[in-house]
Amino acid sequence: MSEALRTRIFQELDSLVLIDPHTHINALSPASTTLADILGYHYYTELAHSAGMPKDQIEEPGLDPAEKCARLISCLGPLENTVQYSWLVEMAQVLFGFEGDQITPENWQSVYGAAVEKMAQEDWADQVLQQSKLEAVFLTNDFDDPLEGFDTSVYIPCLRADDLVFHLAKPEVRERLERASGASVGDADSLWTSIGKLFDHFTSRNAKACAISLPPDFAPTKVSKGRADTAISTICADGSDAHSSHRQALSHFVFWTLAEFCAEYKLPFDLMIGVNRGVYEDGVFQGQDLYDSRVSLIQYKDLLNSFPQVTFPISVLASVTNQELVSYAWIFPNVVTSGHWWYSNTPAFIEHDLASRLEAVPRTKQIGYYSDMYKLEFALPKFAMYKRVLAKVLAERFVIDRGWSEDRAIELGERVLRGNVEEVFGV
Amino acid sequence: MSEALRTRIFQELDSLVLIDPHTHINALSPASTTLADILGYHYYTELAHSAGMPKDQIEEPGLDPAEKCARLISCLGPLENTVQYSWLVEMAQVLFGFEGDQITPENWQSVYGAAVEKMAQEDWADQVLQQSKLEAVFLTNDFDDPLEGFDTSVYIPCLRADDLVFHLAKPEVRERLERASGASVGDADSLWTSIGKLFDHFTSRNAKACAISLPPDFAPTKVSKGRADTAISTICADGSDAHSSHRQALSHFVFWTLAEFCAEYKLPFDLMIGVNRGVYEDGVFQGQDLYDSRVSLIQYKDLLNSFPQVTFPISVLASVTNQELVSYAWIFPNVVTSGHWWYSNTPAFIEHDLASRLEAVPRTKQIGYYSDMYKLEFALPKFAMYKRVLAKVLAERFVIDRGWSEDRAIELGERVLRGNVEEVFGV
Amino acid sequence: MSEALRTRIFQELDSLVLIDPHTHINALSPASTTLADILGYHYYTELAHSAGMPKDQIEEPGLDPAEKCARLISCLGPLENTVQYSWLVEMAQVLFGFEGDQITPENWQSVYGAAVEKMAQEDWADQVLQQSKLEAVFLTNDFDDPLEGFDTSVYIPCLRADDLVFHLAKPEVRERLERASGASVGDADSLWTSIGKLFDHFTSRNAKACAISLPPDFAPTKVSKGRADTAISTICADGSDAHSSHRQALSHFVFWTLAEFCAEYKLPFDLMIGVNRGVYEDGVFQGQDLYDSRVSLIQYKDLLNSFPQVTFPISVLASVTNQELVSYAWIFPNVVTSGHWWYSNTPAFIEHDLASRLEAVPRTKQIGYYSDMYKLEFALPKFAMYKRVLAKVLAERFVIDRGWSEDRAIELGERVLRGNVEEVFGV
Repeated sequence: MSEALRTRIFQELDSLVLIDPHTHINALSPASTTLADILGYHYYTELAHSAGMPKDQIEEPGLDPAEKCARLISCLGPLENTVQYSWLVEMAQVLFGFEGDQITPENWQSVYGAAVEKMAQEDWADQVLQQSKLEAVFLTNDFDDPLEGFDTSVYIPCLRADDLVFHLAKPEVRERLERASGASVGDADSLWTSIGKLFDHFTSRNAKACAISLPPDFAPTKVSKGRADTAISTICADGSDAHSSHRQALSHFVFWTLAEFCAEYKLPFDLMIGVNRGVYEDGVFQGQDLYDSRVSLIQYKDLLNSFPQVTFPISVLASVTNQELVSYAWIFPNVVTSGHWWYSNTPAFIEHDLASRLEAVPRTKQIGYYSDMYKLEFALPKFAMYKRVLAKVLAERFVIDRGWSEDRAIELGERVLRGNVEEVFGV
Repeated sequence: MSEALRTRIFQELDSLVLIDPHTHINALSPASTTLADILGYHYYTELAHSAGMPKDQIEEPGLDPAEKCARLISCLGPLENTVQYSWLVEMAQVLFGFEGDQITPENWQSVYGAAVEKMAQEDWADQVLQQSKLEAVFLTNDFDDPLEGFDTSVYIPCLRADDLVFHLAKPEVRERLERASGASVGDADSLWTSIGKLFDHFTSRNAKACAISLPPDFAPTKVSKGRADTAISTICADGSDAHSSHRQALSHFVFWTLAEFCAEYKLPFDLMIGVNRGVYEDGVFQGQDLYDSRVSLIQYKDLLNSFPQVTFPISVLASVTNQELVSYAWIFPNVVTSGHWWYSNTPAFIEHDLASRLEAVPRTKQIGYYSDMYKLEFALPKFAMYKRVLAKVLAERFVIDRGWSEDRAIELGERVLRGNVEEVFGV
Repeated sequence: MSEALRTRIFQELDSLVLIDPHTHINALSPASTTLADILGYHYYTELAHSAGMPKDQIEEPGLDPAEKCARLISCLGPLENTVQYSWLVEMAQVLFGFEGDQITPENWQSVYGAAVEKMAQEDWADQVLQQSKLEAVFLTNDFDDPLEGFDTSVYIPCLRADDLVFHLAKPEVRERLERASGASVGDADSLWTSIGKLFDHFTSRNAKACAISLPPDFAPTKVSKGRADTAISTICADGSDAHSSHRQALSHFVFWTLAEFCAEYKLPFDLMIGVNRGVYEDGVFQGQDLYDSRVSLIQYKDLLNSFPQVTFPISVLASVTNQELVSYAWIFPNVVTSGHWWYSNTPAFIEHDLASRLEAVPRTKQIGYYSDMYKLEFALPKFAMYKRVLAKVLAERFVIDRGWSEDRAIELGERVLRGNVEEVFGV
């Protein structure tokens, strides 16, 4: 029976202790303090707003956490069908002892109270990690993060490169870079040196990856030092008003430099491809970004050929790009499929994308999942969603369709869930 | 058991009385008069032609209806696998008492006879509505339709804007506009006024939507009144020979104007995105259009940001655009997913597209289905097809995969089938 | 029960004798001589390389076949999940009596030995054809292939046009054409005449198709004879250094000429759309090609309209183009869907693409599958994979979802597997 089979496989996969290879956790405040931290996650605010809740109701300055929750809960009805809502309910059930199926204006206060009580416990973050069967989570740190005050073997640093690649024309970003690297930046050489110092710092603090999110039209190429010099001097003079050709040359130079340092420091370079920022201009915080699905990995041809020694775990925002990802990971030794990102992180897309990966990409080259979470409480329901889909695909497409034994299917599941995270990132 | 579960859910959904929110019904002649009206639907003529039947056999002028049916039936063999063919059989079974599985040269005459008899009944259209459990259908009216002679609470007007946006360079279309609005059109102001009169007229006759189909390369932007003046005066002088930049400026101006009036008159603006007209030049009537699936909703960024007060029920022609539709409806409060259009209106695409909508778009923002029919007899089999897929998705992905109760799944189905049509269109 | 139903349908489909309508078999050496011919298939070398095996280990000159196998087998572990690996195991089980599930460094030698023994038999190729239930296979011959020394009713010639369309700027290709056609090529007329002679030769040797693989940006148009003259004379003078506009004009002229001769000689023209050659520059032999999925069949609008008398069996490399293929085959009488090519030839993509074809394209216009193989041993496991997916789709989407009888479903399967190959190619 397929359902019983799925359940058995799920239970085996669910017993594993995992490492979450991509999150936005703040290591100094990894867990929530009230339910407002949970409901303030953009998935709820943007969906509530999309379903009709005014932005100013959500983002009123100085709003009391309980009041924020009361407001949001009263607008979650239209979202009850979504898988994002199911994360909330499953989290409340497992972490806060909630016994219902829907969190409503009638019952939310008991969840709020239970959550506050739990979250107030000194070791709440550790409890969450343990209940979520996580032994470590990757961070996504600003390039000038001091990376101090936390255990880097549990909260593993990762250099987030977005500001460097896309915002270095802003004086404040250059100043942050100069402060972080302790060197002034005025030309290609000094920029190179500064970026190198970031890698020194990050790897000295156990960083295991560099990561960046990229717009659909990004197509990296190598930029000569002379061209970079021109771009940097123009930008230092004109800032964000510099002609876009200079800003693009600088972006490309920095991006290529990051790849070079990833090679030197043996760091995988996570590429998260496809997001357009700020498409919905009046959206809530973090609820403004969308995309153009007309993107191709052919845009990364030069990069992938130029850095055979760098591993690129690649995430794509749109499921229509997934087949290219499968094919590129099947051909390029340095391409690894990575998780199910954002708008593709819902069961129907995961199922389709996962099935095609599992049957055509070497099993050693697939990072199954990451939570992308901002607060630790989300790993549990997100991973549970993924593991259910993984169990379904293994049951239906490997055990039933291809005659595999359950053990062999489970072993494949374990590898994409855990083994590859260890091997790819060296943790 | 999944199949029994699907059947139970289907039966509940199938008991609902619905409103069909998008058709091409002629309110003055809503139902068929012979089987030739059914077989003359482009789905049959174009598929028969595609499978080898010469166009001149199908479109011979003055062809007797029975002879047309005889010819087409003799060429339907190669189509028996298609879901379009299954609509024909199911319709014949339910509406005309046909008892077979295939309509063939041997048995078609009895179907023809039964249909003629039924269709001759005075109240045939009402019978079809009742048997199809439809209480109303939306029309798609030419902008100069007098909208008279029918019950607008059953046949609900909708302003079709294609001619205004894409063919106003043609003198005859401008003349139709001038006649319909009772005002001459010579500049941006007078064009604006004329279009406003159409909205007056349509809304006074219970119109509940404005609708347009759009080619893949359309990317609306606001055009200044001055630029529009130039475009209009050039086009009034040169007609369709005016430079494409002028024709495009006029298109954009009219489109933007329509959105402004949708805001003023509180009409949803149905966008049906992605069709290229006349791709197969020698195709049969209505069997010439195809598409380029390289389209993105990012092309509508300015529009969606500029008109937060207008609801845009959006249909996409290609399933590869469906994920963008899901994501844009998840983020933009004014975007609603709408039906499964034309080349995406077959079970495999519906299943994939529907599943991803149901799990990520607020349930209040999904118009489940419309028939797009030209004759009333088609609503029954088309909606039945959709309801079967909907029951399958609810059974497999909500009851089984997510542990929902059947009642909760059925309630979700009812909302996308009926409740949202009422709320979105105010009917 | 769905699984039992699938098995019954599969067994019926599996009992058919088939014709494989597209392979790369060398008719003078159709089968393998050692397991190294099998493991040397690019699917294994590229996946082993992708999973970490250095290219020079695989492509060391003069490598002994057994040593090559030993090396590759030791690197296949990471591939055991892939469907490509399953082809190897199924082939070994059926053709070489292998009894395990995995071919490993411990057991490969017995497979190697059994294979060598079988392959040494005089009639091995015929044995493979018989065990694979194939009565004929299409070849893909260079335009200057003498087509001699084999039975063209079993090994059916097909004119491969890639060199003519894309490499005629190279002097050596023009020389090959001049030798093959026995005429010098200096202008549009003489080029036309030469190409006509190839069609004479090929059709006199029982050729049943012309075939070409095309990059994503190819968009054929008719080129005037005058423009072609200019292009040819420039290219004869400058060779591959000629400006790209001349090379493109020549490509388009040759392509259009091929279509004209396909019309004259009544040959179907197989279009295999979407491949970018040499994307991974340091990849193994035949393991360097990838693609940009941003391609549309609208690029072929002029061609399809201009040659209504030519049948175009079309393959698309990316599954995201499949819906366009479905729609174009549904509308254009001269478009036939053809197989599941290369990166789309894995079960998850086949299932999705096949389901949408079977329910919307006339059943007479679908070439179900071709193996694309280089050695005869691969037809068996590749066709078996396809037939399993076909049985699944017929069981789930026709018998269960649409209430078809098993017999009717099997009949549909037989038609796409065998009947259409006969009718479309006239074999």
